[in-house]
Amino acid sequence: VPRTMGDRIWAVYEIRAATRRTGDSRARKLAVEQTVEVPAAHVPPASRAMVGVIESLEKRGARHWRVTYSYDHAVVGDSLLQLFTLLFGNASLARGVRLAGLAMPNVLLDRFRGPAFGIPGLRRLCAVPARPLICAAAKPIGLSSAQLAEICSAFALGGADIVKDDHGLANQVNAPFRERVARCQDAVLAANATTGGNTLYFPNLARGGEQAFDDLEFARGIGCRGVLLSPLLIGPDTVRAIAARGEVAILAHPAFTGGLLQASHGIAPEVLYGTLFRLSGADGVIYANAGGRFPFGIDGCLAINRALRTALGKLPPSCPVAGGGIDAKRVPYWISRYGPDTMFLVGSSLYSQRDLRAATARLMDSVKRTGNG
Amino acid sequence: VPRTMGDRIWAVYEIRAATRRTGDSRARKLAVEQTVEVPAAHVPPASRAMVGVIESLEKRGARHWRVTYSYDHAVVGDSLLQLFTLLFGNASLARGVRLAGLAMPNVLLDRFRGPAFGIPGLRRLCAVPARPLICAAAKPIGLSSAQLAEICSAFALGGADIVKDDHGLANQVNAPFRERVARCQDAVLAANATTGGNTLYFPNLARGGEQAFDDLEFARGIGCRGVLLSPLLIGPDTVRAIAARGEVAILAHPAFTGGLLQASHGIAPEVLYGTLFRLSGADGVIYANAGGRFPFGIDGCLAINRALRTALGKLPPSCPVAGGGIDAKRVPYWISRYGPDTMFLVGSSLYSQRDLRAATARLMDSVKRTGNG
Repeated sequence: VPRTMGDRIWAVYEIRAATRRTGDSRARKLAVEQTVEVPAAHVPPASRAMVGVIESLEKRGARHWRVTYSYDHAVVGDSLLQLFTLLFGNASLARGVRLAGLAMPNVLLDRFRGPAFGIPGLRRLCAVPARPLICAAAKPIGLSSAQLAEICSAFALGGADIVKDDHGLANQVNAPFRERVARCQDAVLAANATTGGNTLYFPNLARGGEQAFDDLEFARGIGCRGVLLSPLLIGPDTVRAIAARGEVAILAHPAFTGGLLQASHGIAPEVLYGTLFRLSGADGVIYANAGGRFPFGIDGCLAINRALRTALGKLPPSCPVAGGGIDAKRVPYWISRYGPDTMFLVGSSLYSQRDLRAATARLMDSVKRTGNG
Repeated sequence: VPRTMGDRIWAVYEIRAATRRTGDSRARKLAVEQTVEVPAAHVPPASRAMVGVIESLEKRGARHWRVTYSYDHAVVGDSLLQLFTLLFGNASLARGVRLAGLAMPNVLLDRFRGPAFGIPGLRRLCAVPARPLICAAAKPIGLSSAQLAEICSAFALGGADIVKDDHGLANQVNAPFRERVARCQDAVLAANATTGGNTLYFPNLARGGEQAFDDLEFARGIGCRGVLLSPLLIGPDTVRAIAARGEVAILAHPAFTGGLLQASHGIAPEVLYGTLFRLSGADGVIYANAGGRFPFGIDGCLAINRALRTALGKLPPSCPVAGGGIDAKRVPYWISRYGPDTMFLVGSSLYSQRDLRAATARLMDSVKRTGNG
């Protein structure tokens, strides 16, 4: 992506094609498919400027080409979902097409605005100016609201910065949403009163449509300062709408995203989690870390971290949240790899230590020692 | 999936594993990952009933196994998004896991309710009791509202049953949402007044969050009887919430779904488009037809058709909408393959005939002859 991009959207794709000729033909078809979606010969004059311009086409491997498009930002208008459609709407239905890079003009970045808090805001909410942040997860489903509140209490007494709901906690009969969220929030506040600490409880909003905003109002009303959202389920534009209110911080969960992370089809993790989730308004973005339960490598994680923290118009940086099976003992190592502007989501590793409070306290000690905090 | 499934959710996955032992181990880990997400040894007694029960594990190929789980429906509660999370939330982040079958108890089907109209309702709205339905698409982006209205008019004068917006039409400066939708609706009504016909105009709602409901109100207020939604962008639960109002019919667009359609990872098209989009409330589900611009085969299309039309609790059948590059001349052939309870979305093929009205009229004639209508 060039430094001078003018007012256009720049998108880079890796596409599969045997020769330059077939690559060029595929690239031209994609430009039409993603925008005007009528045969190239029948694009009316008023629509010609909407078709993606092929800025370059480079060979990247035996059967792989890298094509860079630029688009008039008018294609997107004021709809974040239309940006997703432009980038990977019908293209998702093809094979061997991977969005690998994205740059947007300020006019678009200013429109969607991104995180209301970002790293500085999360640090302010958590009252942690410099060290890495630690997030614990209240679970599992099946427990009563009282049992989940006890778990939240233990994490807060141990000094975790944030306790988030597991993304599977919704509005189940054993722990209905309002009862659960109220009890967990109360438990964390009570623990804070005991310790003098400042743990925050972020409930999961697992209902969409209008209900998402009712649930948000409830959580905010009882004092929650953040929520957990799964952007690809609740919808990226619902994330944006919640961020635009500026009331609560948002942690984005990667549920349902994995189909997009194929080696030769989909969206590069740094574009999906890094640029697109940040643009949607996530203050922190959870991803499955290298060396955990999921098959992701360190390079992708570093690329996500960079994308979340890099300059992007007036958007604040979003906080990388490494999760998906982080061993509490390895957190100091990951701090050395990822730096202090990172949140670590430690789940199972705390649960397997049984005494959640003591396990959390040990983890926080190690973070404070390592993280210079 | 057994005939007597009790009150449980049954989900069938194809998983990659070299041996029965590794297959069994993967299956057990997935059961935990998708529900309680704590190490198996640390699942508290109250949560044990939430873990998926492995009902069977069968070899399906060299390195492929078919595992059938049953789950307590209490895992889902009243959240449609939590059903998506249960079925393919964290599992999406693994490799070689494909949801291939799904059956749900009536208690859950009754809760989410599905389409408000379904095939019978769409037929009622279109005043077409028996023959296949034809949908045309207003496009391309870049045109003014007046130009798009002219196109809608031509399709309506030609007698299309439905004219839907292209899924790329959002709220762009050249054709702002309200202006465009009002003009297109007016143009279709005026054409109907001329022909005595009954063409319906379905605008695309490309904005999510609260704005989706504002846009819906506007469209309904000026008399639109249906809308186009992309469930994986606007969010399946927003689709459900709009369907639950019972005010407008919903056509679901497959934008952004393609990452899920891998051969060995993702969700089988008949489960995604067939069961899940129908459950979310789509009255018609657009998919990329075999032999069109996208790489899908006939077997998948037939499976989608079956899943949309089959008995599913009290849900009405949803209408398969075959699109993605259907040649107008081939519609009679596809009618012979898919039967009359199908909608055909014909786009580019009409545009390349230039005279949209005449092209549409020819298509409608051929449908009425073939479709016994």
